Amino acid sequence: MSYQLHYWPGIQGRGEFARLALEAAGASYVDVARGDAAAGQGLPALLHYLEDASVTRPPFACPLLVDGQRVIGQTAAILLYLGPRLKLVGASETDRLWTHQIQLTIADAVDEAHNTHHPVGSGLYYEEQQAEALRAAKAFRTERIPRFLGWLETVLARNPKGDKYLVGGRLSYADLSAFQLVEGLRYAFPKATQRALRKTPRLVALHARVAQQRRVAAYLRSERRLPFNEQGIFRRYPELDA
Amino acid sequence: MSYQLHYWPGIQGRGEFARLALEAAGASYVDVARGDAAAGQGLPALLHYLEDASVTRPPFACPLLVDGQRVIGQTAAILLYLGPRLKLVGASETDRLWTHQIQLTIADAVDEAHNTHHPVGSGLYYEEQQAEALRAAKAFRTERIPRFLGWLETVLARNPKGDKYLVGGRLSYADLSAFQLVEGLRYAFPKATQRALRKTPRLVALHARVAQQRRVAAYLRSERRLPFNEQGIFRRYPELDA
Repeated sequence: MSYQLHYWPGIQGRGEFARLALEAAGASYVDVARGDAAAGQGLPALLHYLEDASVTRPPFACPLLVDGQRVIGQTAAILLYLGPRLKLVGASETDRLWTHQIQLTIADAVDEAHNTHHPVGSGLYYEEQQAEALRAAKAFRTERIPRFLGWLETVLARNPKGDKYLVGGRLSYADLSAFQLVEGLRYAFPKATQRALRKTPRLVALHARVAQQRRVAAYLRSERRLPFNEQGIFRRYPELDA
Repeated sequence: MSYQLHYWPGIQGRGEFARLALEAAGASYVDVARGDAAAGQGLPALLHYLEDASVTRPPFACPLLVDGQRVIGQTAAILLYLGPRLKLVGASETDRLWTHQIQLTIADAVDEAHNTHHPVGSGLYYEEQQAEALRAAKAFRTERIPRFLGWLETVLARNPKGDKYLVGGRLSYADLSAFQLVEGLRYAFPKATQRALRKTPRLVALHARVAQQRRVAAYLRSERRLPFNEQGIFRRYPELDA
């Protein structure tokens, strides 16, 4: 049976980390909220899991994955679940935990990227918090982007199995998420990210390697891959980059 | 062998979520950074894991747990690891994933609480971002505290095994973390939290239940439990509450 991925249609957002894993593994899945409400898909299907009192274990937010009777929220928990099933994580508990730890750190970076355009609160528009955003983005650009990307570079450099992948000698969901982080940062902060990436050649190579993986490359060319835009997590507001 | 917990001495911070699990289970552990550097403990032992090039899988930040050869960073990953070992999570994959999902959602609430006093950046002092903090705290108080606590209340209310615990019929690390979230919010935002808790009687009862668990109660009375203060995540700045 197909996995059901539920995420806000129209943006990559946090859903993209789950989508990339499903695509890279060639898994059968339905991107439910982008489907037709008349066919039982679309937003109503998504909102059911967030709002209906019959859901005994309701996710706090999207993305959420439905696999038969299971309903799983939180991006990192979805990947923890999918990893072994999609063969996108090593077999040992140690490798699985390390992959998850990298995922959680990438999630922190994603949260901080979101905070640059919504430092006051996610309930307000960007235009209502632009003054705060200018300051938050500067701190993120100068301190946090180099720190997060530098850490991923260190992880690659110290991998005993070589610097091709973050964990062991083959592709894991952490690599896919690192790819997406680089993609998003390059979109939102092209100048600052380019500067930081000059010091992280292994991460640049990892990004290119992931982009060239056969299924990922096909996905990126397809219409299933939504373009970045100014409703998602990574937004290009030129005033926030330098 | 004892677990080694490494976290900044002097604050509860994110380390407290791991500490509560270790304490509630009566596990043998060393709170390394609070120990004596002359005995191989203290901050140098902590910094080794963050900075030494010999660490092949370096955590991005504290807290970190050392168990023999394993070094685990990220609070939620530490609890994922400790849960089964300390019997603070159910046996099934479904229960473990749901417990982890709750933990990740609590971690999001903790991140947002931190953001109220550091909306611009963690590298700046509160006093350098107080204007932004006033606005961020208002949004957090009015929208996010009720939403997060309300979600935990819903999780309790819908638990098929009854509303005493978040997952199944016995204590899990998610309950301990929910206790700590309520503790922290009550400290940092006493007025706003009191208002929100009026609508979450099951969560209030859970908090009291956890506080009365024999080992937790002993821990809370001990000097091992650091008091809240204005260097941690939950800070009492009266101007941020209302």
